[in-house]
Amino acid sequence: MNLLEAIKFDAHGLLPAITQDTASGRVLMLAWMNEEAVRQTLATGFAHYYSRSRQCQWKKGETSGHIQKVVDMYLDCDGDSLLLKVEQTGPACHTHRTSCFYNQRQGHHWMIIEEPVK
Amino acid sequence: MNLLEAIKFDAHGLLPAITQDTASGRVLMLAWMNEEAVRQTLATGFAHYYSRSRQCQWKKGETSGHIQKVVDMYLDCDGDSLLLKVEQTGPACHTHRTSCFYNQRQGHHWMIIEEPVK
Repeated sequence: MNLLEAIKFDAHGLLPAITQDTASGRVLMLAWMNEEAVRQTLATGFAHYYSRSRQCQWKKGETSGHIQKVVDMYLDCDGDSLLLKVEQTGPACHTHRTSCFYNQRQGHHWMIIEEPVK
Repeated sequence: MNLLEAIKFDAHGLLPAITQDTASGRVLMLAWMNEEAVRQTLATGFAHYYSRSRQCQWKKGETSGHIQKVVDMYLDCDGDSLLLKVEQTGPACHTHRTSCFYNQRQGHHWMIIEEPVK
Protein backbone atom coordinates (compact mmCIF):
# COMPACT_ATOMS: atom_id res chain seq x y z
CA MET A 1 0.00 0.00 0.00
CA ASN A 2 1.07 3.57 -0.67
CA LEU A 3 3.13 4.93 2.23
CA LEU A 4 0.93 7.86 3.21
CA GLU A 5 -2.42 6.18 2.49
CA ALA A 6 -1.64 3.43 5.01
CA ILE A 7 -0.96 5.85 7.86
CA LYS A 8 -3.83 6.63 10.21
CA PHE A 9 -3.38 10.08 11.68
CA ASP A 10 -5.40 10.98 14.78
CA ALA A 11 -8.11 13.65 15.09
CA HIS A 12 -5.35 16.28 15.25
CA GLY A 13 -3.67 14.93 12.11
CA LEU A 14 -0.79 13.44 14.12
CA LEU A 15 0.73 10.08 15.01
CA PRO A 16 3.48 9.14 17.45
CA ALA A 17 6.90 8.24 16.05
CA ILE A 18 9.43 6.27 18.11
CA THR A 19 13.07 6.89 17.28
CA GLN A 20 15.59 4.11 17.91
CA ASP A 21 19.36 4.30 17.50
CA THR A 22 20.28 1.80 14.83
CA ALA A 23 23.75 1.20 16.31
CA SER A 24 22.97 0.82 20.02
CA GLY A 25 19.32 -0.24 19.78
CA ARG A 26 18.49 2.36 22.39
CA VAL A 27 15.12 4.09 22.22
CA LEU A 28 16.01 7.76 21.88
CA MET A 29 12.74 9.68 21.91
CA LEU A 30 9.09 9.78 21.04
CA ALA A 31 7.86 12.67 18.92
CA TRP A 32 4.88 13.45 16.72
CA MET A 33 4.49 13.60 12.96
CA ASN A 34 1.82 15.07 10.76
CA GLU A 35 1.52 14.24 7.07
CA GLU A 36 3.91 17.05 6.16
CA ALA A 37 6.54 15.72 8.59
CA VAL A 38 6.27 12.26 7.03
CA ARG A 39 6.64 13.81 3.55
CA GLN A 40 9.64 15.87 4.65
CA THR A 41 11.27 12.83 6.27
CA LEU A 42 10.75 10.72 3.14
CA ALA A 43 11.93 13.48 0.81
CA THR A 44 15.11 14.36 2.72
CA GLY A 45 16.06 11.13 4.51
CA PHE A 46 16.31 13.05 7.79
CA ALA A 47 13.75 12.96 10.60
CA HIS A 48 11.19 15.76 10.65
CA TYR A 49 8.46 16.08 13.26
CA TYR A 50 5.60 18.33 14.22
CA SER A 51 6.00 20.23 17.47
CA ARG A 52 2.73 20.23 19.39
CA SER A 53 3.99 22.84 21.86
CA ARG A 54 5.37 25.21 19.22
CA GLN A 55 2.73 24.21 16.65
CA CYS A 56 5.17 24.06 13.76
CA GLN A 57 7.13 21.72 11.51
CA TRP A 58 10.48 20.82 12.98
CA LYS A 59 13.55 19.26 11.45
CA LYS A 60 15.28 17.40 14.27
CA GLY A 61 18.64 19.10 14.80
CA GLU A 62 17.88 22.17 12.72
CA THR A 63 19.28 24.43 15.44
CA SER A 64 21.34 21.98 17.57
CA GLY A 65 22.91 20.10 14.67
CA HIS A 66 21.78 16.86 16.32
CA ILE A 67 20.22 15.45 13.19
CA GLN A 68 18.80 11.99 12.60
CA LYS A 69 19.54 10.15 9.36
CA VAL A 70 16.71 7.68 8.81
CA VAL A 71 17.98 4.20 8.05
CA ASP A 72 14.70 2.26 8.30
CA MET A 73 11.08 3.13 8.87
CA TYR A 74 8.29 0.86 10.11
CA LEU A 75 4.52 1.23 10.46
CA ASP A 76 2.72 -0.81 13.11
CA CYS A 77 -0.14 -3.28 12.70
CA ASP A 78 -2.82 -0.65 13.25
CA GLY A 79 -1.16 1.95 11.04
CA ASP A 80 -1.17 4.49 13.84
CA SER A 81 2.42 4.61 15.04
CA LEU A 82 5.82 4.75 13.38
CA LEU A 83 9.24 3.43 14.31
CA LEU A 84 12.30 5.15 12.85
CA LYS A 85 15.72 3.58 13.06
CA VAL A 86 18.23 6.37 12.78
CA GLU A 87 21.87 7.30 12.80
CA GLN A 88 21.83 9.95 15.52
CA THR A 89 24.34 12.81 15.45
CA GLY A 90 25.06 13.97 19.01
CA PRO A 91 22.60 13.55 21.88
CA ALA A 92 18.95 13.10 20.91
CA CYS A 93 17.49 14.86 23.94
CA HIS A 94 17.19 18.65 24.24
CA THR A 95 18.75 18.24 27.72
CA HIS A 96 21.91 17.00 25.94
CA ARG A 97 21.39 13.42 27.07
CA THR A 98 21.76 10.54 24.62
CA SER A 99 18.14 9.50 25.10
CA CYS A 100 15.06 11.33 26.37
CA PHE A 101 14.27 8.28 28.53
CA TYR A 102 16.73 9.01 31.33
CA ASN A 103 14.28 8.89 34.25
CA GLN A 104 14.30 5.32 35.49
CA ARG A 105 11.74 3.99 37.91
CA GLN A 106 13.43 2.97 41.13
CA GLY A 107 10.85 1.98 43.73
CA HIS A 108 8.43 4.88 44.21
CA HIS A 109 10.57 7.48 42.42
CA TRP A 110 12.07 8.43 39.08
CA MET A 111 15.85 8.55 39.23
CA ILE A 112 17.97 10.37 36.66
CA ILE A 113 20.36 7.68 35.43
CA GLU A 114 22.25 9.72 32.86
CA GLU A 115 24.09 13.03 32.86
CA PRO A 116 24.13 15.48 29.94
CA VAL A 117 26.86 14.88 27.37
CA LYS A 118 29.53 17.58 27.61
CA MET B 1 9.54 12.93 42.33
CA ASN B 2 6.59 10.65 43.01
CA LEU B 3 5.99 8.28 40.09
CA LEU B 4 2.45 9.32 39.20
CA GLU B 5 2.84 13.03 39.94
CA ALA B 6 5.62 13.33 37.38
CA ILE B 7 3.57 11.86 34.56
CA LYS B 8 1.76 14.29 32.27
CA PHE B 9 -1.32 12.66 30.84
CA ASP B 10 -2.94 14.28 27.80
CA ALA B 11 -6.40 15.86 27.56
CA HIS B 12 -7.89 12.36 27.38
CA GLY B 13 -5.96 11.22 30.47
CA LEU B 14 -3.59 9.08 28.39
CA LEU B 15 0.07 8.87 27.43
CA PRO B 16 1.88 6.66 24.91
CA ALA B 17 3.96 3.77 26.24
CA ILE B 18 6.66 2.13 24.12
CA THR B 19 7.39 -1.51 24.88
CA GLN B 20 10.87 -2.86 24.15
CA ASP B 21 12.04 -6.46 24.50
CA THR B 22 14.76 -6.46 27.12
CA ALA B 23 16.54 -9.45 25.59
CA SER B 24 16.53 -8.55 21.87
CA GLY B 25 16.23 -4.77 22.16
CA ARG B 26 13.45 -4.89 19.60
CA VAL B 27 10.64 -2.35 19.87
CA LEU B 28 7.54 -4.50 20.24
CA MET B 29 4.58 -2.13 20.30
CA LEU B 30 3.20 1.24 21.25
CA ALA B 31 0.10 1.33 23.41
CA TRP B 32 -1.64 3.81 25.69
CA MET B 33 -1.85 4.08 29.44
CA ASN B 34 -4.14 6.01 31.72
CA GLU B 35 -3.39 6.55 35.41
CA GLU B 36 -5.15 3.31 36.30
CA ALA B 37 -3.01 1.35 33.82
CA VAL B 38 0.15 2.81 35.33
CA ARG B 39 -1.09 1.88 38.82
CA GLN B 40 -1.98 -1.66 37.70
CA THR B 41 1.41 -2.08 36.01
CA LEU B 42 3.25 -0.88 39.11
CA ALA B 43 1.15 -3.00 41.45
CA THR B 44 1.42 -6.25 39.50
CA GLY B 45 4.73 -5.97 37.65
CA PHE B 46 2.96 -6.84 34.39
CA ALA B 47 2.09 -4.38 31.62
CA HIS B 48 -1.44 -2.99 31.66
CA TYR B 49 -2.75 -0.51 29.11
CA TYR B 50 -5.90 1.37 28.24
CA SER B 51 -7.58 0.36 25.00
CA ARG B 52 -8.79 3.45 23.14
CA SER B 53 -10.84 1.37 20.69
CA ARG B 54 -12.51 -0.81 23.34
CA GLN B 55 -12.45 1.99 25.95
CA CYS B 56 -11.39 -0.27 28.78
CA GLN B 57 -8.48 -1.31 30.97
CA TRP B 58 -6.47 -4.08 29.42
CA LYS B 59 -3.89 -6.43 30.85
CA LYS B 60 -1.58 -7.35 27.99
CA GLY B 61 -1.99 -11.08 27.40
CA GLU B 62 -5.10 -11.49 29.55
CA THR B 63 -6.75 -13.57 26.82
CA SER B 64 -3.78 -14.59 24.62
CA GLY B 65 -1.41 -15.42 27.47
CA HIS B 66 1.19 -13.19 25.79
CA ILE B 67 2.00 -11.29 28.95
CA GLN B 68 4.76 -8.73 29.52
CA LYS B 69 6.80 -8.81 32.70
CA VAL B 70 8.11 -5.31 33.29
CA VAL B 71 11.85 -5.25 33.97
CA ASP B 72 12.47 -1.50 33.75
CA MET B 73 10.35 1.59 33.28
CA TYR B 74 11.47 5.02 32.07
CA LEU B 75 9.77 8.41 31.79
CA ASP B 76 10.98 10.85 29.14
CA CYS B 77 12.29 14.40 29.59
CA ASP B 78 8.86 15.98 29.11
CA GLY B 79 7.08 13.47 31.33
CA ASP B 80 4.64 12.62 28.56
CA SER B 81 5.78 9.24 27.29
CA LEU B 82 6.90 6.00 28.89
CA LEU B 83 9.32 3.27 27.88
CA LEU B 84 8.83 -0.22 29.29
CA LYS B 85 11.52 -2.86 29.01
CA VAL B 86 9.81 -6.21 29.26
CA GLU B 87 10.21 -9.94 29.19
CA GLN B 88 7.68 -10.81 26.52
CA THR B 89 5.91 -14.16 26.58
CA GLY B 90 5.02 -15.21 23.01
CA PRO B 91 4.48 -12.72 20.18
CA ALA B 92 3.61 -9.16 21.23
CA CYS B 93 1.39 -8.37 18.25
CA HIS B 94 -2.26 -9.44 18.00
CA THR B 95 -1.39 -10.70 14.48
CA HIS B 96 0.92 -13.23 16.19
CA ARG B 97 4.07 -11.47 15.01
CA THR B 98 6.93 -10.83 17.41
CA SER B 99 6.61 -7.06 16.99
CA CYS B 100 3.77 -4.81 15.81
CA PHE B 101 6.29 -2.97 13.63
CA TYR B 102 6.44 -5.50 10.81
CA ASN B 103 5.62 -3.12 7.92
CA GLN B 104 8.95 -1.86 6.63
CA ARG B 105 9.22 1.03 4.25
CA GLN B 106 10.71 -0.13 0.98
CA GLY B 107 10.66 2.67 -1.59
CA HIS B 108 7.10 3.90 -1.98
CA HIS B 109 5.47 0.97 -0.20
CA TRP B 110 5.19 -0.83 3.13
CA MET B 111 6.40 -4.41 2.90
CA ILE B 112 5.51 -7.07 5.47
CA ILE B 113 8.88 -8.37 6.60
CA GLU B 114 7.71 -10.89 9.15
CA GLU B 115 5.26 -13.78 9.18
CA PRO B 116 3.05 -14.73 12.13
CA VAL B 117 4.64 -17.09 14.63
CA LYS B 118 3.08 -20.58 14.36
